[in-house]
This record gives sequence, structure tokens and C-alpha cells, in this order.
Amino acid sequence: CPICYTRPGMPLVPPLNFAMIASGVYRSGHPNKQNFAFLRKLGLKTIMYFAMEDYPPEMQHFVEQEGIEVLHYKTEGNKEPFIEVNHEDISHALVKLLDKRSHPVLIHCLKGKHRIGCLVGCLRKIQRWSMTSIFDEYRKFAGTKVLADQEFIETFNHDQVPYDYEHRPGWL
Amino acid sequence: CPICYTRPGMPLVPPLNFAMIASGVYRSGHPNKQNFAFLRKLGLKTIMYFAMEDYPPEMQHFVEQEGIEVLHYKTEGNKEPFIEVNHEDISHALVKLLDKRSHPVLIHCLKGKHRIGCLVGCLRKIQRWSMTSIFDEYRKFAGTKVLADQEFIETFNHDQVPYDYEHRPGWL
Repeated sequence: CPICYTRPGMPLVPPLNFAMIASGVYRSGHPNKQNFAFLRKLGLKTIMYFAMEDYPPEMQHFVEQEGIEVLHYKTEGNKEPFIEVNHEDISHALVKLLDKRSHPVLIHCLKGKHRIGCLVGCLRKIQRWSMTSIFDEYRKFAGTKVLADQEFIETFNHDQVPYDYEHRPGWL
Repeated sequence: CPICYTRPGMPLVPPLNFAMIASGVYRSGHPNKQNFAFLRKLGLKTIMYFAMEDYPPEMQHFVEQEGIEVLHYKTEGNKEPFIEVNHEDISHALVKLLDKRSHPVLIHCLKGKHRIGCLVGCLRKIQRWSMTSIFDEYRKFAGTKVLADQEFIETFNHDQVPYDYEHRPGWL
């Protein structure tokens, strides 16, 4: 297949802002064709995608080819002063993230900075990380401080995420 | 024990510049007492420590208490124009890192920026990451560009690291 074609000997290119955040959970920006060989090695079972845009044809082809379940959350990023990341989407996504039956899972938005930064920040609260370390991690990816996102994370009610305790990952 | 005492209900504080870089491998700056509760949850088997300084008594106590094997590489960071990270240390460390029998393993230096950034960069070469993505990850932790480190990574002969193929981690 010309789209999935992997060139042997070429370097592997992770998607923009790629990182592993816990066993079985990866974050990044929107993957493109260049990243398919890299992504294939992760053996993904699930992708959670946060953006308004639909997948371009190559990406759609890739996930079908690999049999990856895609959950598309059509959510906007926090934009001062009126638009906010959807709390319900984040909560729903966390339930899925905290179920190891969906692992390995990639969570991504467009640039891997703000929307995913919010989601990861809320996940860290459930893991009981200090706010200082949550914001430090957020800023490694988002660069400059986006206060609206940090406020979102800080005020997010992580105690009420109804995840399934029986299937929680070992790192929780 | 007053040193290891974990205060229930308190947030967990990861060490400075903490991150998971692959299954079973974590990076950070030098942990302190505040981080012990967090570190305990990782169930570390090995720590690889890159700095001239010996561990302070609390850290020494912690690793003994937890039965963690510590490999101390007394190596300096790259300092222009004359001091360079020791190639042999990096190579030796990579052999250990690429042996899943030492996992879970934490690699750390003092700030989790430069020495560990070099080591992670060389590991990424073995994983066949593109130089662009290697440097992007390096800079997330080191902040401003340290050219000597990036040159070290670029010229490091990753093909000759004699790791044990039989015990390599699944992500290689």
C-alpha cells in the first residue's frame, strides 16, 4: 500500500510533541503520514482525538488498516474569554484512559499542546500529583503559560470521574 | 521511619523534570525527600545516577530501604570547550538501560536536563528516532539549546553499543 509504505533504514519520526505519559498511554499532536512507521511500533488499540476537524484520508486509512478504535471528541480548546474545553468530554475521556482494556492508547489534538495538556493535567490530578509538577509538565509542551488551561486543570473536579476501578491501570 | 514517612492525603511530588521515556524507564533530576512517596509507587529496581556528588544521607537511606540497586556514574556534563560527557559511561549505561532485567529504572543527574538529556538522546538514536525529534525532546527539558550536548548526541556511535539482544525491551 503506497500510503502505509515503510522505508527501511529511514529514521522513525514520532508525531509532534510525542511523549509517553504512563504505561500504555501516549500523547502527541496530530500525526501525519511521516509518523505511520513510528506509530505502528506502538501497537495502538485506541486513539482519542480532540479537535473539530475530521481525519484526512491518509490518517483514516491508517487507523482502519491497523484496526485502531478512534474516539473523536469534537471539542475546542480554551479560548479566553468565552470558549472552554468541554468538561464532559474530558471526564468521558478520562474514564476511557483509566481503563487498561483500551491500552495502548494515543491521545492527540492538533499540536499536542493545549487540549491534550488539559487532559493530561486532569489525569495527573487523579494520580495525585502536586499542582506545581502538573503545571511544569503542561508548560514543557505548551510553551508559554496559558492561564485558561491551567485554571481549567486546577478547577476540574477529578474526584468525580466515574472510572471503572476493576480495570484501572497499575500506575493509578 | 521519620525519613520515609508518607503523609496520607498529601499530593505526590515527582522529582524535578520527571518523565517516563519508555516502558520501564523514567528520567528526572536528583530526587529529594519530598519525592520518596512518589518514587515508591514506581517500584524501582535500578537507579542510574550521573553526577560527581555522592548521595545525601536521606537518599542513601531511601534506596537501601527500598532495595534499589544504584549505579553511580561519576561523570561531568558537557562544558565547552574542554569537558565532555564520558562516552564509555553513556555506552555502559545504555547496555544496562536496554536490559529489561534492570527495569523499572530511573536515570537521573542533578537537574534532569543535560547529562540525562545526552543519555536519552543516545537512546533515541538506538530507537532510530529522527534527529529533529531527538533535539525537540532534549530542549523540552534543557530549555535553551546546549550545542555541545546536541553535538555529543549527534556524533555518538549508537551502532556499537553492545547491548544484550536476548534481554532487550519490547519497545526496541
